[in-house]
Amino acid sequence: MTTFNVMRTRQIKTPDPNFEAKVRHSFTHNGVINALGGKLIKVEAGFVEVHLPFSQAASQQHGFFHGGMIATIADTASGFASYTVCAEEEECLSAEFKVNFLAPARGDLMIARGHVIKDGRMLIIAEATVSVVRDGEEIECALMLHTLARTKHVKTGQVNEHRH
Amino acid sequence: MTTFNVMRTRQIKTPDPNFEAKVRHSFTHNGVINALGGKLIKVEAGFVEVHLPFSQAASQQHGFFHGGMIATIADTASGFASYTVCAEEEECLSAEFKVNFLAPARGDLMIARGHVIKDGRMLIIAEATVSVVRDGEEIECALMLHTLARTKHVKTGQVNEHRH
Amino acid sequence: MTTFNVMRTRQIKTPDPNFEAKVRHSFTHNGVINALGGKLIKVEAGFVEVHLPFSQAASQQHGFFHGGMIATIADTASGFASYTVCAEEEECLSAEFKVNFLAPARGDLMIARGHVIKDGRMLIIAEATVSVVRDGEEIECALMLHTLARTKHVKTGQVNEHRH
Amino acid sequence: MTTFNVMRTRQIKTPDPNFEAKVRHSFTHNGVINALGGKLIKVEAGFVEVHLPFSQAASQQHGFFHGGMIATIADTASGFASYTVCAEEEECLSAEFKVNFLAPARGDLMIARGHVIKDGRMLIIAEATVSVVRDGEEIECALMLHTLARTKHVKTGQVNEHRH
Repeated sequence: MTTFNVMRTRQIKTPDPNFEAKVRHSFTHNGVINALGGKLIKVEAGFVEVHLPFSQAASQQHGFFHGGMIATIADTASGFASYTVCAEEEECLSAEFKVNFLAPARGDLMIARGHVIKDGRMLIIAEATVSVVRDGEEIECALMLHTLARTKHVKTGQVNEHRH
Repeated sequence: MTTFNVMRTRQIKTPDPNFEAKVRHSFTHNGVINALGGKLIKVEAGFVEVHLPFSQAASQQHGFFHGGMIATIADTASGFASYTVCAEEEECLSAEFKVNFLAPARGDLMIARGHVIKDGRMLIIAEATVSVVRDGEEIECALMLHTLARTKHVKTGQVNEHRH
Repeated sequence: MTTFNVMRTRQIKTPDPNFEAKVRHSFTHNGVINALGGKLIKVEAGFVEVHLPFSQAASQQHGFFHGGMIATIADTASGFASYTVCAEEEECLSAEFKVNFLAPARGDLMIARGHVIKDGRMLIIAEATVSVVRDGEEIECALMLHTLARTKHVKTGQVNEHRH
Repeated sequence: MTTFNVMRTRQIKTPDPNFEAKVRHSFTHNGVINALGGKLIKVEAGFVEVHLPFSQAASQQHGFFHGGMIATIADTASGFASYTVCAEEEECLSAEFKVNFLAPARGDLMIARGHVIKDGRMLIIAEATVSVVRDGEEIECALMLHTLARTKHVKTGQVNEHRH
C-alpha cells in the first residue's frame, strides 16, 4: 500500500512500558485464537504479528481459510497492536473494521501483521495485512482497516463496541 | 436502519429453484461454523438466518463472543443469502465486508440475519444484522455491509476474493 | 435493508430540545452543500433529509452525480442526523464512513436520508440512503454506514476526525 | 501503514500504453474536481496524485475541508490510479469505498495519492492517502480503501456502480 511518509519512519510511542507482557497475557485468554492453535509471534510498540495454522475448523466449504477466520486473525493482530499503545488503565474496543479480500486464502499457515496508523486521544486507527504461506511462498490475501475506541471502563459495558 | 422502500416491499427473485438445497448442502461443508455448533435456521430467496451458541472457542478474553466470530457468523448469513440469488452454475465470492459493533456481544446465543440489498449483474450487495440473546431478550450488537462478486469459475482461483 | 426490530419501532431521544435550530444554523455554514444548492428538507430527532439538484459542478466525467458528491450528501445527512442526538455542549466528528454504490446516480435530484442507528456514550453509528429522482421515479443508488465520535472540545483539534 | 512487501517493490503493469493520455482526458471532464480547481499532478502506471486548493466551496461549517470533499479527492486519485491499469476497451466503476479520518483537514492545499493494491481480473483494489499542507508542512488526514469493478459496457448502465 501507499505509505504515509511519517508512518514509515516514525517511532510509535507507548505510555505503558509493560505493553508486551499485558498483550501476551491477554492473548492466552483469547478463546477463538487459542482453540485454533494461533500463536503470538511478535509484539512491538504499535505492532503485533500472529500466526494461525490451517485446520478444518478454520476452513470454509472449499477447504480454504474462512473469510471470518481471516477477519478474526486480522482483528487479533490490529487489535493487540492497538492495545500496545494504551495506557496501563486503558483498554481499546473495536468500533468497526473493514476487510478487503485480495486472493483466495489457500495455504498451510496464515500470517497477520497489525500496525497502528494513528494513536489518537479517543480513537486508534490500525491496519492488518494477512498472507498465507503456500508451497513455501508468502501470498498476500487480505487487508483490514480497523477503528478502535480507548476506554477506561472495562466493567460498565456502556460503550457500544466489543473488547480487546 | 433506514430501509429503502423498494427493499422492504419487493420480492427478491432467484434464478435457481433449488436454492435452499444448495445452501443447506454447502453449509454442511463449512468447517468453522460447524465446528462451533452453528445452525442454519432459515433459507429464503435473498435471506438466511444462522444461529451460533456461545462457547469458549467463540469467545475473546472477556468472555464475550469474539469480534472475529461476529464477523464470521455475519459473513455466513449474508454470504449464503447472496448465494440464494446465484444461478445454478454460479458462485459468489466475498470482495469485502465492513462490520460495525453496536454493543458488547454477551449472551448465550448469537443470531445473524443476512439479506440481499442489491443483486446486480456482476456484484451482489448484502447486509447482516447480528444480535445476542441475553436473559431471554434479543439485543442488537453488530451490523455488516458485504460486497460479493458473482463468478462461474470455481476452480480457477483467478478472482481476488474468497469463496462462499 | 434488514431492519433491526428495535430500530424500526423505537423513538430516538435527544438531550437537546433545540436540535432543529442548531442543525439548520450549522447547515447554512456548510460551504460545499450550499455552493451546490443543497437543501435541508427535514430535521427530526435522529433523522435528517437533504436534497441536492444535479449540476455540472456535482458531476463526474459521464454526466452522473460524482461518487464523491454522493458521499458528501450522504455524510451530510447522517452527520446532521447524528448531531440531533448530541447534547447542547457536544459536537460529533466523523471517524470513518463506508459507501456502497448500488446503481448509476443519473437523475435531476439526489435525496439523502440519514438515520441514527446507535447513539452510544462515546460513538454514534448512523446510516444514510441515497436515491436519485429520474423521470419522476426515485431510484436507490447508494448506502452509507458512518461512525462518529462525540466531543465537547471543538477548539482543540486533538481528536483525529473531521467535524460536523 | 504496513506495506505488503510485494506492493512496495513490484512494478504495476498496464495493458494500455496510452494510459496517461486517457486519464488526463477523462480528468478534464470531471465536473466536481474542475469546478473546485483540482489539478492532476502525476500519472504513473497504478499511481495518480491530485491536488485541491482550499476554498469556501470545499469547506464544512468550521472552515476545514469537508469530509465529503476529502472522499471526493481520494476517490478521484484511487479511481484514476485504477483506470491506468484498465485495458483500452475497459472502464472501472466504484463498487464501494471506506474513508478513515485521521486528523482535522485544515490547510491551504489537499493532496491525494492513489495506488493500485491489487489489479484482479474482475475487481481492482486501490487505496488513497490524503494530506493537507499547513504552514508549509504536509499533515496526513485521511485514508481510503476502494473497490472497483472492471467493465467493458459503458453505455448499458447495467452494473451497480458509478463510473470513473
